[in-house]
Amino acid sequence: MSLIVQKFGGSSVANNERVFNVANIITNTYNKGNDVVVVVSAQGDTTDDLIEKANSINPSASRREMDMLMSAGEQMSVALLAMAIEKMGYPVVSLLGWQAGFETTSTYSAARIKRVRTDRIKKELDKKNIVIVAGFQGLNRFDDITTLGRGGSDTSAVAIAAAMKADLCQIFTDVEGVFTADPRKVSNAVKLEVISYDEMLELATLGAQVLNNRSVEMAKKYDIELEVLSSMSQAPGTIVKENVNMEKMLISGVAKDCDVARISIIGAPDRPGIAFKIFSLLARKDINVDIILQSVGREGEKDIAFTVASSKGDEAVRVLSEHKAILGESARITKDDNVAKISIVGAGMESHAGVASTMFEALYDAQINIQMISTSEIKISVLIDKKDADRAVNTIHSKFFD
Amino acid sequence: MSLIVQKFGGSSVANNERVFNVANIITNTYNKGNDVVVVVSAQGDTTDDLIEKANSINPSASRREMDMLMSAGEQMSVALLAMAIEKMGYPVVSLLGWQAGFETTSTYSAARIKRVRTDRIKKELDKKNIVIVAGFQGLNRFDDITTLGRGGSDTSAVAIAAAMKADLCQIFTDVEGVFTADPRKVSNAVKLEVISYDEMLELATLGAQVLNNRSVEMAKKYDIELEVLSSMSQAPGTIVKENVNMEKMLISGVAKDCDVARISIIGAPDRPGIAFKIFSLLARKDINVDIILQSVGREGEKDIAFTVASSKGDEAVRVLSEHKAILGESARITKDDNVAKISIVGAGMESHAGVASTMFEALYDAQINIQMISTSEIKISVLIDKKDADRAVNTIHSKFFD
Repeated sequence: MSLIVQKFGGSSVANNERVFNVANIITNTYNKGNDVVVVVSAQGDTTDDLIEKANSINPSASRREMDMLMSAGEQMSVALLAMAIEKMGYPVVSLLGWQAGFETTSTYSAARIKRVRTDRIKKELDKKNIVIVAGFQGLNRFDDITTLGRGGSDTSAVAIAAAMKADLCQIFTDVEGVFTADPRKVSNAVKLEVISYDEMLELATLGAQVLNNRSVEMAKKYDIELEVLSSMSQAPGTIVKENVNMEKMLISGVAKDCDVARISIIGAPDRPGIAFKIFSLLARKDINVDIILQSVGREGEKDIAFTVASSKGDEAVRVLSEHKAILGESARITKDDNVAKISIVGAGMESHAGVASTMFEALYDAQINIQMISTSEIKISVLIDKKDADRAVNTIHSKFFD
Repeated sequence: MSLIVQKFGGSSVANNERVFNVANIITNTYNKGNDVVVVVSAQGDTTDDLIEKANSINPSASRREMDMLMSAGEQMSVALLAMAIEKMGYPVVSLLGWQAGFETTSTYSAARIKRVRTDRIKKELDKKNIVIVAGFQGLNRFDDITTLGRGGSDTSAVAIAAAMKADLCQIFTDVEGVFTADPRKVSNAVKLEVISYDEMLELATLGAQVLNNRSVEMAKKYDIELEVLSSMSQAPGTIVKENVNMEKMLISGVAKDCDVARISIIGAPDRPGIAFKIFSLLARKDINVDIILQSVGREGEKDIAFTVASSKGDEAVRVLSEHKAILGESARITKDDNVAKISIVGAGMESHAGVASTMFEALYDAQINIQMISTSEIKISVLIDKKDADRAVNTIHSKFFD
């Protein structure tokens, strides 16, 4: 007998038919003699609808009250899913985040899980109940409801799996697993049987939105084997775990991220500490910087370019413009939204030379200009013109996988 | 400075405009230097919508899961109301039933409040916060969410008022107070300035659905002054309290209840204990019996008639039919839904003779036949043909109030 944690996203429970489909998956797992703990998100568009409702009353509502409102979404979905399982004749109980023992930091709307007190879940499993837990939510030290931020249900599932030492944590989504590229865009994209935590992390942060990266980090930390699979098909998914044998596979995927803006500072004074000052300014405003490129400009000057999330582009320009004293009065600040970041990820590239040059060759063959380059041990990212993005993914994917 | 508890029903917060209207009432009360605790129901049709959703998945869902689902309704409304008050610039905090300290019995969907632990509410009032509490819900000893049943938000409000020793508990509804008859039906119905708990209780159980009767019982027990008033008007409402001076007012209202069925047992054997057996049978099935009439039938037989709620009529007939051995094989059981119960209520009738005969005279003048009569210290009810109900209310009202 194994303990299996299953997580279902909002689209997997968007309507009654899908709720019963999910109930089927759960009871099949239970019928095989497993203990089953299920984490579920709010149904379909519920969260967006609630946000819209809140905005119509008070667009600058406190995060505490937003969390009070949002957490009702999962409350409804756990109850409805439990009712479907009751209908099928199985013993089941739904639990809210706080009932399932989720203790979080006190930061509303972006709380982090401090611990999961598993007494209640264990008690329910001892009674042979299927346990349905509201994802995305917990309780802080003030006894107030917090939410974990978008994608938090994945993290809820992995946290339960870690606290309960589960044998497997299955993340059901609307895709069949992790692919070497977006299968809607790249016709010969291949589903991976297995991928390492680190590769999955790089893919998650690079716009391949299969798994929330906090959940992968947590799975890595507690060595929880994840399976990413679709609730709509019977196909096996992709296993995410440590120590994947990468000998055969050089890279595990090509990812595209169009939610990116390039900020350029042309003609900053060539003084020590200028980069430090710029990036600490941005950090203080919670603006995360990704690729950074610094080049020599005209005499006594530097050109600095970096990328931020599209939504932070204007704020980055504003913050920098308000501190012209640091940048020098003659520096020019520009923003370019017409860019995309294309990345390849693979633990194999650490030990294999030539991965970068193969990628660059593919782009050269397709006559796509590279604006910026960034590399890590298992990732190479390039910034290119947004209009070339899909073509770039296809040509790189063909080079590595055909 | 006073402590005022205000309760707003679902229709009072049905849309954004009404939410802000309620926020205005609350902040006006707060501005006068009062501590304000607000109890609010789920918005408009939310509860009905949730019930419908549950039924579409599992019409016989467990009550525990129903309560889990239902309680999300108030959770959303407290958050949205708090956001509106935040928008107006006031300090506010919303609390769920369990956060506000509502401990209940464990009966799901019909829990009773055992106590309200007021630490959290007091702490929030000390911080000068307006406190918005989710009505209708609490927590049982299993740490599971319970609901108090329909109309439970009134009870929530009175329970807080009792536990906090509030100076006043205002129940805002969509009517301006308690009237001598339904003002939509009786043109010269008068709003009462004041009414006693007992009269209010009789009216509440007699189909004048202004206040939930559990809340009035609790207010009486803890001597909490209630005010029933409209959230849509500035008019003062009706005060409900003990020791009302009733010298001037003989009766305080005429009420109509069409949700009633008459069950007749014709030709039961005239044996001792037959009535006891019949009514204990019904009691075991949770069927409440109201007016009872027993008369001598043919020799050696009894005729027994009684009223139950319409919804219980068929079940009552079925239960009795299954126990023909008790009733005697020759007894006939019939049900009549075409009846209405008309009642007059007034603490004054205890010390004033002739109230009953005035009522009967009014019905005689209007040529309305009385089928059954029931009386208590402060109430007289008659059962009549349903088609005569509105005419009966008008003619009785005129007799007493014109």
